[in-house]
Amino acid sequence: MPAAVSAERIWDRCEQLARCSEHPEKLTRVFLSKEQVEASQLVLGWMREAGMVARLDAIGNVVGRYEGNRPELPCLMLGSHLDTVRDAGKYDGMLGVVTAIECVARLSARGRRLPFAVEVVGFADEEGVRFGATLLGSHAIAGTFDPKVLDGRDRAGSSMRQALEDAGLDPDRISTAARRRDEILAYGELHIEQGPVLEAEGLPVGVVTAINGFTRYAVDVTGVAGHAGTVPMTLRRDALAGAAECALAVERICSQVPDLVGTVGRCEVLPGAVNVIPGSVKFTLDIRSPRDPDRLTAVRDVLAECRAVGARRGLKLDAAPIMEHATTPCAPWLMDQMAAAIDAEGVRPYRLPSGAGHDGMAMQAIADVCMVFVRCEKGISHNPAEAITVEDAGTGARVLARFIEGFRGR
Amino acid sequence: MPAAVSAERIWDRCEQLARCSEHPEKLTRVFLSKEQVEASQLVLGWMREAGMVARLDAIGNVVGRYEGNRPELPCLMLGSHLDTVRDAGKYDGMLGVVTAIECVARLSARGRRLPFAVEVVGFADEEGVRFGATLLGSHAIAGTFDPKVLDGRDRAGSSMRQALEDAGLDPDRISTAARRRDEILAYGELHIEQGPVLEAEGLPVGVVTAINGFTRYAVDVTGVAGHAGTVPMTLRRDALAGAAECALAVERICSQVPDLVGTVGRCEVLPGAVNVIPGSVKFTLDIRSPRDPDRLTAVRDVLAECRAVGARRGLKLDAAPIMEHATTPCAPWLMDQMAAAIDAEGVRPYRLPSGAGHDGMAMQAIADVCMVFVRCEKGISHNPAEAITVEDAGTGARVLARFIEGFRGR
Repeated sequence: MPAAVSAERIWDRCEQLARCSEHPEKLTRVFLSKEQVEASQLVLGWMREAGMVARLDAIGNVVGRYEGNRPELPCLMLGSHLDTVRDAGKYDGMLGVVTAIECVARLSARGRRLPFAVEVVGFADEEGVRFGATLLGSHAIAGTFDPKVLDGRDRAGSSMRQALEDAGLDPDRISTAARRRDEILAYGELHIEQGPVLEAEGLPVGVVTAINGFTRYAVDVTGVAGHAGTVPMTLRRDALAGAAECALAVERICSQVPDLVGTVGRCEVLPGAVNVIPGSVKFTLDIRSPRDPDRLTAVRDVLAECRAVGARRGLKLDAAPIMEHATTPCAPWLMDQMAAAIDAEGVRPYRLPSGAGHDGMAMQAIADVCMVFVRCEKGISHNPAEAITVEDAGTGARVLARFIEGFRGR
Repeated sequence: MPAAVSAERIWDRCEQLARCSEHPEKLTRVFLSKEQVEASQLVLGWMREAGMVARLDAIGNVVGRYEGNRPELPCLMLGSHLDTVRDAGKYDGMLGVVTAIECVARLSARGRRLPFAVEVVGFADEEGVRFGATLLGSHAIAGTFDPKVLDGRDRAGSSMRQALEDAGLDPDRISTAARRRDEILAYGELHIEQGPVLEAEGLPVGVVTAINGFTRYAVDVTGVAGHAGTVPMTLRRDALAGAAECALAVERICSQVPDLVGTVGRCEVLPGAVNVIPGSVKFTLDIRSPRDPDRLTAVRDVLAECRAVGARRGLKLDAAPIMEHATTPCAPWLMDQMAAAIDAEGVRPYRLPSGAGHDGMAMQAIADVCMVFVRCEKGISHNPAEAITVEDAGTGARVLARFIEGFRGR
C-alpha cells in the first residue's frame, strides 16, 4: 500500500494557500476576509478534483464529501482550519486540510469506496484572530455556536454579523451548519505538533492522547516600594523577590508530574527603576495537562505556595482566574487505530498530549476525536519560521491514508 | 543649653521653600529655574537675618558666612541642597540648609563667636534632574566640576552653559566657586534618612557612618521563547525562571553581610504573553555597601551565581556594568563629635550608613565629612508623602547646634 499520496502536491498546495494573505510579505488570513474567500475557492476546487462533492456551509467552512459504498452513510470526518494568526506559518491548520484531501484523492484515483463516507472540513475560523472568539467553524458544525459572539467586533469596528452578511452569509442561518452525532463516526485531524517533543524523540509523527485542559490566573503581588540604597534587606517587602519565588514554585510543582506544564508568561514589575525596590508585580499563570485532576491539583498547589510566599514575606497576594477549559481526551479506540497506522508505516507509535488548542475541543460535542501530529522544526509555530520537511509531510499523509482506509467504526 | 533653636521656624521655612515650585500642586524645583532663584532669595534673606554675610557663588550655590572670633578663620562648613526631584517632598535637602541657618541664628542671637567661622551652603544642584549630572553645586565648591557637563542639555534642549548665562552666571568662571582644603575644617550635613532604619529603631536621629558606594549592572538573560502549552518542562529554556533564581541569589547574598543591600529594580520579560514561555529577561542589579570590599565581593558572588544559573539552565547571560561609585566614609573624629552631640541630647547615638547619595560624596575631595540623619516616616522620600515630625526637626536642630558649638578641629 501507500505511495500514491503525493507529498509534493501537499507541499505545493500549502505554498498556494500561503499566498492567500492580507500582506504580500507575511501570511495573515482571518475569518471572512477576501483572502479567505480565495483560499476557500482553491480548496473547493481541490476537493472536487479529488472526487468530492464540495460546498461552503452557513459559517463559511469548506465541506467536501466523498461517499461510501452506498449513499448517505455516516462519515469519518477529517479536518483542520484554513484561517491563520497574524504573520503565521504555512502549516498550522492548512496541512491537515490539504493532507486529508490528498488521502481522498488517493481513494478516488483508485475508484475505491469505503463502508462509510469520508468528509473533509476546512474550518473557517479556529484561531479567533478577527473577533477574539475561537473555534467558530467547529462550534458551528458541533451545534455549539454561541450567537452572542455575532455581536463581537473586529479592530475596524465591524460586527461579526455584518462581516458574515458582507461575505454573503446569513448570520441567522448558522445553526444549519450543525451536524448530528449519528452522521459522524469519528473526527480525526492531522496537525503540526507546534512543540519540540517529536523532534526530540526523532519521530516524524505521533498519536495525540488529549488536547490539554488549561487554567489561567492573573496574580498581583503587592509589597512596599522603597529606595534601593536606604532600605536594609531585613526591612524590605520586595514584590519581585516574592514573585521570583512564585515563578520557581510553578516550575518546580509542574515539573513533578508527567505532561503537566506551567508557565509564568507575563510579568510586569513596578515602578521599574534601577534604584527602587519593586513595590508591585503582576504576573500570569498558565497551567495545562492532559489529565484534569493533575491540572487542578497543580493549580491548587501553586496557588497555595504563592500564598505561603506572600504570607512569609508580608506581601499581599491576589490571584484571579482568567480562563479555564477542561481536557479533551482523544478516544482510546481511535488512538489505537492511529497508532496501528503509524506502526504500519514503520514508525514507533509515540503518544503525546497536545498543549495547544484544536478544533477537536469543539468537535468532541458530537463525535469521538483523535489527532495525529507531524514533527515541526524546533517546535516553532505561530511564526513565519514554522517549518516541516516534505518527507515528514509524506509520512503524515501515508499514516492518515492508512488510518482512513483501515478505519473501523466503534 | 539649647531651647533657642526654633523647630517651628524650621518647619515654616520648609513650607515657604516648598512653595517655590514649577507646579503649584507638586514640588519641583530644578537647577537654574525661576523658582530656584526665588528659593535662593529667601535663603539669602534668612542667612543675613541670622547674622551671616551671604552671596551666590559662580554656579548659583547660596553661601552664607558667620565669622569666628577673628576674621578669615577656616570654617566648619554645613550644607545641603536646595534643588528637588520632580514631585518631591519638602525636606530632602532643604531641611539641612534651613536647620544650619537656625543654628547660626542661635549663635548670632547670643552674640557668640566661635574659634572658627561657620559657613552654610545651599547647593544649587544635587539631584541632577535638569541636566542628568548630579552634585553640580558641591563639585563646583570641591573644585571637581567637570566642564564637559556644560554641554549637557535639559529636556527643552537648552544647554547648561546657556542656562547659566540666562541666569546671569558666567559658565567660564565656575572654577571661582572652588574652595581650598585649608579654608575648611570639616563638612557636616543634616539630612532626612530617606530610609526606615531610625523609625524601626525608635530614634529621632542617627550618625551616618558612610555614604555607600554602589555598583549597577544591566543583565540580559536569553532563553528560548515557546508555546506555554506545547513545550514540556524538561525541554524549556525559560528566561524568567532563570532570572527569578538570579533575583533570589541577589537577595540571599546581600542578606548575609551587615549594611549590604542588593536590588533587582527593573525587570522586563519578553515577549510577555500569558501563553508564551519567556525568551528574554532584562533586569538591573544595584548593590551598595558602606564598605567597598563587601560590595565588590557581593558583586562578584552575585554575577558568578547568575552565570552558574545561566550555565545550568542553558541560558545566555550577559552582564554589563552601568555605573560605579566608591564609598565615601564619614570621618571617625567627626562621627564621634556628632555622636557626643546626640548623646548630650539624651538620645542613644545610633550609627547607620547612608544608602542614598549626598553632597558629601563631592565634598570629601577637600574636607573630612560627616552627616546626621533625621528620622522620616516609613522611609519614604522623593515623594510628596515624605514626612517628618516637628519634634524630630527640633531634635535634629539641637543636635546640630551642639555639634557646631562643641566642634573641635582635628
